[in-house]
Amino acid sequence: MGLPSKVKIIDVGPRDGLQNEKQVVPAEVKTHLVHLLQEAGLREIEVTSFVSPKWVPQMADNAQVMQAIARRADIEYSVLVPNMKGFEAAVASRPDEIVVFASASESFSQKNINCSIAESIERFAPVVQAAHAQGIRVRGAMSCTVGCPYEGDIAPAQVESLARLLRGVGVDRVDVADTIGVGTPLKIQRALEATFKHFGVDQVSGHFHDTYGQAIGNTLAALELGVWNFQSSVAGLGGCPYAKGATGNVATEDVVFMLHGMGIDTGIDLDRLVDAGLYISAQLGRPSSSRAGTAIAKKRPEPEGGAPGSVCV
Amino acid sequence: MGLPSKVKIIDVGPRDGLQNEKQVVPAEVKTHLVHLLQEAGLREIEVTSFVSPKWVPQMADNAQVMQAIARRADIEYSVLVPNMKGFEAAVASRPDEIVVFASASESFSQKNINCSIAESIERFAPVVQAAHAQGIRVRGAMSCTVGCPYEGDIAPAQVESLARLLRGVGVDRVDVADTIGVGTPLKIQRALEATFKHFGVDQVSGHFHDTYGQAIGNTLAALELGVWNFQSSVAGLGGCPYAKGATGNVATEDVVFMLHGMGIDTGIDLDRLVDAGLYISAQLGRPSSSRAGTAIAKKRPEPEGGAPGSVCV
Repeated sequence: MGLPSKVKIIDVGPRDGLQNEKQVVPAEVKTHLVHLLQEAGLREIEVTSFVSPKWVPQMADNAQVMQAIARRADIEYSVLVPNMKGFEAAVASRPDEIVVFASASESFSQKNINCSIAESIERFAPVVQAAHAQGIRVRGAMSCTVGCPYEGDIAPAQVESLARLLRGVGVDRVDVADTIGVGTPLKIQRALEATFKHFGVDQVSGHFHDTYGQAIGNTLAALELGVWNFQSSVAGLGGCPYAKGATGNVATEDVVFMLHGMGIDTGIDLDRLVDAGLYISAQLGRPSSSRAGTAIAKKRPEPEGGAPGSVCV
Repeated sequence: MGLPSKVKIIDVGPRDGLQNEKQVVPAEVKTHLVHLLQEAGLREIEVTSFVSPKWVPQMADNAQVMQAIARRADIEYSVLVPNMKGFEAAVASRPDEIVVFASASESFSQKNINCSIAESIERFAPVVQAAHAQGIRVRGAMSCTVGCPYEGDIAPAQVESLARLLRGVGVDRVDVADTIGVGTPLKIQRALEATFKHFGVDQVSGHFHDTYGQAIGNTLAALELGVWNFQSSVAGLGGCPYAKGATGNVATEDVVFMLHGMGIDTGIDLDRLVDAGLYISAQLGRPSSSRAGTAIAKKRPEPEGGAPGSVCV
């Protein structure tokens, strides 16, 4: 296995995670979460989105949060923008990177953003140009790269087609997202390989949802292809709107636990990351969706020791 | 990757899962669970253990459950036995396989079963002979093969040593168990390779707990070494006595979801398996620990469709 020796994680919890939470989280809490992630060693954080508050009320405080963050020069802050209007609103917040998004599934594109894949790309083209004119990097998030709630399986050719379009409009790098978490290792590898036809491995990140418990296996499958950029959410923030009550983004804690166990450097302090997860989970009034975070937290109060009455195998 | 085309899963939920549940589950419920697993296509089921009811009160109904099962000739039923006394109690129930257990960690052996590793093997030697004399196969469960709650990391040499001892007393096959779920893919592969020095790949199974969310990645890592036998628990039954409130065995549903997604045959009907998981979770009065089981169940009542107010990437 040609595994990378270092991995860079973009924590998308403040954006992709919280946008799927029903209760609106105060800007102060979001800001504190970003600060905790910074202190835990995250060097890329997806902070918010500049989408109409009609559609995503959770992110209506986007400029306020970006303004409140005590930014560090060694950390990159990204924001999601859907169109030129969103970009214009975002630019005053000086993001290091903007994220545009398109789907590998035609049906999902229509239902999620009310336009065809081709139309969504046309809409981005001037945004990419405007961002580059201001020295802002652009990431293209490719959703539904292995499965779609409307179409079922997505063929690698659909992913390749989307990657080609994104390359065509000048996007700097792309995420291969398994939006509904139905991917399994070989399907993820096929989606990544389709993307590699248009972007080098250094420009491709994995973004796997854990809805069906597959994200850690999929992360390993991506590492085996040399991928070293991943998106995840502290505490596994965010549910899945396509299977209510199910989990959403893979938890950053679980990914970091695996990477450190494999001797792969992330620059992240897992204990402080667990603290960040405990903080936001407490604010949301629910347990963390991170298994590593939960296990580490549960072990903290008392010294290790077995319960009576069990023979453990 | 030299992946296997078929995988055989031993569901250990009725034994390893339920023994860690606090409330005692009635024999009728256990029996029904075994029947549901049979109907879902499981062909090996670890039903119960013949351990002193003083130590594991949950399994006091062992003979009753074994008696009540409508056994099928194409399904193998295994039971855990700690010693000759347990074997003698078990034999009337005609198990197809008995499971003996030893630890790769000296400290864990002392604290879990009050004897050294060498003493535990001596204790098994006559049990293995007696089982073979009656035509009963013997599986050796090797606990703590990557980490121990008392010693921390376990070296592959400790696993190799245990595998050698088990081979020496004539055990037919072995489980490589990550009892506390701290394993990550490369460590799991090192533990498996240490075991391969004494047992062929067809005689080695993976038994991974999901305490830190790593079990699906570890299963993939084992598949990549050609391992095609795995233990798991429907609904992820069983907690972890070393991190109370954390998850235990990997959920069979999650493993099957991955395998089927990779085109690997298991003979299992995932929908019926989800039903079995929902049944036992309802009996225990708590949600399933299976992410695939939860996502599949959540999608059942209403047709697929996105929630408003989210832009999904």
